Amino acid sequence: MNPDYKSRLKKALERQFFMKLIGFDITRIEPGFIEGELNIEEKHMQQHDFLHGGLMASCLDIAMGFSAFTLLPPDKAVVTADINISYYNPGDGVKLIARGWVDKPGSRLYFCEGEISVIDKNGKEVLTNKAKSIMCVIDVPPVKL
Amino acid sequence: MNPDYKSRLKKALERQFFMKLIGFDITRIEPGFIEGELNIEEKHMQQHDFLHGGLMASCLDIAMGFSAFTLLPPDKAVVTADINISYYNPGDGVKLIARGWVDKPGSRLYFCEGEISVIDKNGKEVLTNKAKSIMCVIDVPPVKL
Amino acid sequence: MNPDYKSRLKKALERQFFMKLIGFDITRIEPGFIEGELNIEEKHMQQHDFLHGGLMASCLDIAMGFSAFTLLPPDKAVVTADINISYYNPGDGVKLIARGWVDKPGSRLYFCEGEISVIDKNGKEVLTNKAKSIMCVIDVPPVKL
Amino acid sequence: MNPDYKSRLKKALERQFFMKLIGFDITRIEPGFIEGELNIEEKHMQQHDFLHGGLMASCLDIAMGFSAFTLLPPDKAVVTADINISYYNPGDGVKLIARGWVDKPGSRLYFCEGEISVIDKNGKEVLTNKAKSIMCVIDVPPVKL
Repeated sequence: MNPDYKSRLKKALERQFFMKLIGFDITRIEPGFIEGELNIEEKHMQQHDFLHGGLMASCLDIAMGFSAFTLLPPDKAVVTADINISYYNPGDGVKLIARGWVDKPGSRLYFCEGEISVIDKNGKEVLTNKAKSIMCVIDVPPVKL
Repeated sequence: MNPDYKSRLKKALERQFFMKLIGFDITRIEPGFIEGELNIEEKHMQQHDFLHGGLMASCLDIAMGFSAFTLLPPDKAVVTADINISYYNPGDGVKLIARGWVDKPGSRLYFCEGEISVIDKNGKEVLTNKAKSIMCVIDVPPVKL
Repeated sequence: MNPDYKSRLKKALERQFFMKLIGFDITRIEPGFIEGELNIEEKHMQQHDFLHGGLMASCLDIAMGFSAFTLLPPDKAVVTADINISYYNPGDGVKLIARGWVDKPGSRLYFCEGEISVIDKNGKEVLTNKAKSIMCVIDVPPVKL
Repeated sequence: MNPDYKSRLKKALERQFFMKLIGFDITRIEPGFIEGELNIEEKHMQQHDFLHGGLMASCLDIAMGFSAFTLLPPDKAVVTADINISYYNPGDGVKLIARGWVDKPGSRLYFCEGEISVIDKNGKEVLTNKAKSIMCVIDVPPVKL
């Protein structure tokens, strides 16, 4: 594990352009665990006024991918090989909280899990999604990271 | 099947706020089949200058969900129950094309499939993703649709 | 929920011919939870002397399916709509223990989860699999159940 | 690719003990493609007299895994990292045919796809399952293969 994983991760976040577009913020970084949140606005919705399934998938991909990232040596990165998301309840509320964690690390594959809860107007938290992903360890690409 | 499925679908698209946020456009609507595209910009990227996995998931969720929508009677809608996406190649290019289709319709569940290709600067098309989803048929929610 | 869920489930097990073929036994039945085990023999193996991936899938399908079954009214049954299994470690040992539970019940779909541990010769338990499934509620088919 | 892939695969099949237990036979071996079949008997059934979901998963794991095996160099093998199976129709008939193929080969991961059809008493073929799997390339374990 990279002792500077937090600063390395924060540097990566600066170039997470799609994460910025959707308005998701990482709020907690621990070894093998990431939590983030998003203030729900109309732009996150689909036609029935529920949170968009693609938004859920995006927040989960970010939380799970970076949970693996925290455990990597400095010369390695991860890319998503496979992601599976279940939708338990429609998302409707004021804030979304996504969590991702490493369930089984490996030299080549990381098996991660994740979940999303949505906080409604009355402060009640509803579990909306469960997720799994397989992250593939790669050599750091020759880019800004 | 609703004979007016195209106009019903176009009305739904007007309220696909998240789809507008990410810049994905539906370009082909056939019974049980949807194609759409997106001009790739920096906002779609992650830190290694590849297309974001969440973007891929979002385009696929839209294409597969609306492919089911085309086959529904007017009093029904679909919500995503489960989505699975495989990442074959990193996405890098000028245009993304996503396709979704119904593989097995049903009265309660639609099994859909999808794929994404990315066109690079030289016009070469690369298959980046394969996907499956299960769409759950619901009564039309009491909203604008 | 059916107050007689245990006796109904035991009657169903009598006709689980494939479960008998592979030698898996249900050892614990609780509302929304099933545990079972299997004594590992050569017949359960693949060519590298590991437990066969299909065996793991079979035990998990049984444990998750019957965990949903425990929560059903007497006129309903479940069939598997979708199953996803991750393989964390190769299975090698003397006993396999599979657990399945309902994570999100519903009137039409049950989202279940499961896992397998294998006990090796020295009594050490190794987690080999994590799983998710979607069970679809159906009216009891006109059969012996 | 190993020019002797057919003889290597046939040697592996001799030690596929679980495949023999369930009664599945490989009937076609091509580069990146496997077909096999099974004569349906009572031992393959679950309590509603449908083919057992675990049986379907087992046949698909075998067909997809060996489809990757055909493309490997002689010092490599594959193990299942993840499998996902959708159940389109209940299986009921006299013969099951499973097919598996490599959709995206790689140096470390093979993305495979598969499907099952069941032939009923009148010779009609019904598609019962679609599947995806990720096979992980490993060095040949120090075993009989």
